Amino acid sequence: MRLSARNNIHATVTAINQGEAIANVVLDAGGTRLVASITVEAVRELGLAEGSAVVAVIKASDVIVGVPD
Amino acid sequence: MRLSARNNIHATVTAINQGEAIANVVLDAGGTRLVASITVEAVRELGLAEGSAVVAVIKASDVIVGVPD
Amino acid sequence: MRLSARNNIHATVTAINQGEAIANVVLDAGGTRLVASITVEAVRELGLAEGSAVVAVIKASDVIVGVPD
Amino acid sequence: MRLSARNNIHATVTAINQGEAIANVVLDAGGTRLVASITVEAVRELGLAEGSAVVAVIKASDVIVGVPD
Amino acid sequence: MRLSARNNIHATVTAINQGEAIANVVLDAGGTRLVASITVEAVRELGLAEGSAVVAVIKASDVIVGVPD
Amino acid sequence: MRLSARNNIHATVTAINQGEAIANVVLDAGGTRLVASITVEAVRELGLAEGSAVVAVIKASDVIVGVPD
Repeated sequence: MRLSARNNIHATVTAINQGEAIANVVLDAGGTRLVASITVEAVRELGLAEGSAVVAVIKASDVIVGVPD
Repeated sequence: MRLSARNNIHATVTAINQGEAIANVVLDAGGTRLVASITVEAVRELGLAEGSAVVAVIKASDVIVGVPD
Repeated sequence: MRLSARNNIHATVTAINQGEAIANVVLDAGGTRLVASITVEAVRELGLAEGSAVVAVIKASDVIVGVPD
Repeated sequence: MRLSARNNIHATVTAINQGEAIANVVLDAGGTRLVASITVEAVRELGLAEGSAVVAVIKASDVIVGVPD
Repeated sequence: MRLSARNNIHATVTAINQGEAIANVVLDAGGTRLVASITVEAVRELGLAEGSAVVAVIKASDVIVGVPD
Repeated sequence: MRLSARNNIHATVTAINQGEAIANVVLDAGGTRLVASITVEAVRELGLAEGSAVVAVIKASDVIVGVPD
């Protein structure tokens, strides 16, 4: 499926901090640390584990731009 | 200001496609193309232009994880 | 690509109201009207037009629950 | 209260998977499965339970459009 | 309709900057300036204009916490 | 860092309801109750506690406008 989401960042899962409902999936994208908070159901269905090759998908409207002082 | 947002990606502005209310700011993050849809007011206030060094800030709850087939 | 996003609603494009940066894509999902605000770049790249068969993809953290009075 | 949110999908609660902070509320919308991740406080205040008639409310800017391959 | 959204801020519309697809609605909430980017369709349907009494509704998962340096 | 996010609301932390992955941080903004769902990692890194002075940062595209009946 092709997606309207404009941001697709290739990454590897480095850790999964799992609660009852939500898991924080920590990713490494070429040296940049990313975190995705997703449902535990999705972690299980996608079979995510340390080392999984994934894509971080982010809608353009969810990206804030910051300018360092 | 330190932020709870877990994703902070250093990038450079490569293009700005501006409408009346919203602008799509295209970024290059070490070879990965990113797009941020923000208000035109923010573009003006931050003084964004091609070549600006910025940080793409994204909340962990806005990151979807995809697994290639 | 399989996605962590928990909401995938099959729909048909019924109208596209396009601005300079953002387009509102109106969908019909079995009688329910949906609207997606996406970049005009995505509309073009996906080749969206009236009648296109699409999937509305929504992250679980973006769904508010309302209870009618 | 009338809302600017463009997506209002009538549904029934089929399950609630509750953590300490967040609950994943599973909905059935005429045969389509939906999931909403909301605070446990909201579940309690709204009195949500299996069988509750609800509306899934989603902002247009949170809807990604996918096109099947 | 009662909502799971945890943030409901009473405000008054002070300006509307309208594009083709999206409008930025500027609000005053007891001296705090807020901006909501919504569809032009919603502006029209809700009959928003300068002086309208509204509520800014925000899901808890969309709130970032910042700590001033 | 200056941010494109248009909504910055000064507030004080009044409670933190912490799960394994996500914490709901309750804020008081001049008498208005706000809630931010953020990662527990962010709570720890920012050193948030009751009484902390913070800013609730919200992107304009995440604000829904409601009109009371």
